Amino acid sequence: MSFDPATLKYSDQGLIPAIAQDDATGEVLMMAWMNAEAVRQTLDTGRVTYWSRSRQSFWVKGESSGNVQELVDFRVDCDRDCLLVRVRQTGPACHTNRRSCFYTAVRDGTEVELMKPE
Amino acid sequence: MSFDPATLKYSDQGLIPAIAQDDATGEVLMMAWMNAEAVRQTLDTGRVTYWSRSRQSFWVKGESSGNVQELVDFRVDCDRDCLLVRVRQTGPACHTNRRSCFYTAVRDGTEVELMKPE
Repeated sequence: MSFDPATLKYSDQGLIPAIAQDDATGEVLMMAWMNAEAVRQTLDTGRVTYWSRSRQSFWVKGESSGNVQELVDFRVDCDRDCLLVRVRQTGPACHTNRRSCFYTAVRDGTEVELMKPE
Repeated sequence: MSFDPATLKYSDQGLIPAIAQDDATGEVLMMAWMNAEAVRQTLDTGRVTYWSRSRQSFWVKGESSGNVQELVDFRVDCDRDCLLVRVRQTGPACHTNRRSCFYTAVRDGTEVELMKPE
């Protein structure tokens, strides 16, 4: 079946969450949002492209930092309201210069920092 | 630093996305939503608990199906607006009886089914 980004389920703001996972290590790197056009651009260019809610503009990941995400595989979930992009990540994914945005764990009621900036 | 669920950033509906990842394999299993009380219950009980938007009620994952998610590690992202729960998953995570909800890939413009129901 040919894929049409319009068949995904978007929020009232026209957005769908996209989870980025390192294709080599399986590490979950970040979660951000796409609109239908960002989905199209990601598939067309092979460069993962989000919609920045704070800047209200397209966000080609790594365009300014160089920490690009090369698309390896694009997945849609059962409800068609969440995406998983498997990527080759150059450099850190997180704006704090950590490999992953999920560097804080909650253990025994306490926040623990798992990673330092690279 | 002690962890307070009230310090997370929730949507206008009081929800935060939570990604469930298989702790043993690294596979991304599903994404669902929690409210502050679901976060508390997940941490208190060690059983991953979401907020069902369709049923408008707490959803202790696997309570009816037996396909429970035992919490292994609870992570918060840099912006405090997304969660990652590493879990021990019993049975399939997806309501379609597939291991993961992300069983559809988009390759060369075509949808490809990667997994069959178990």
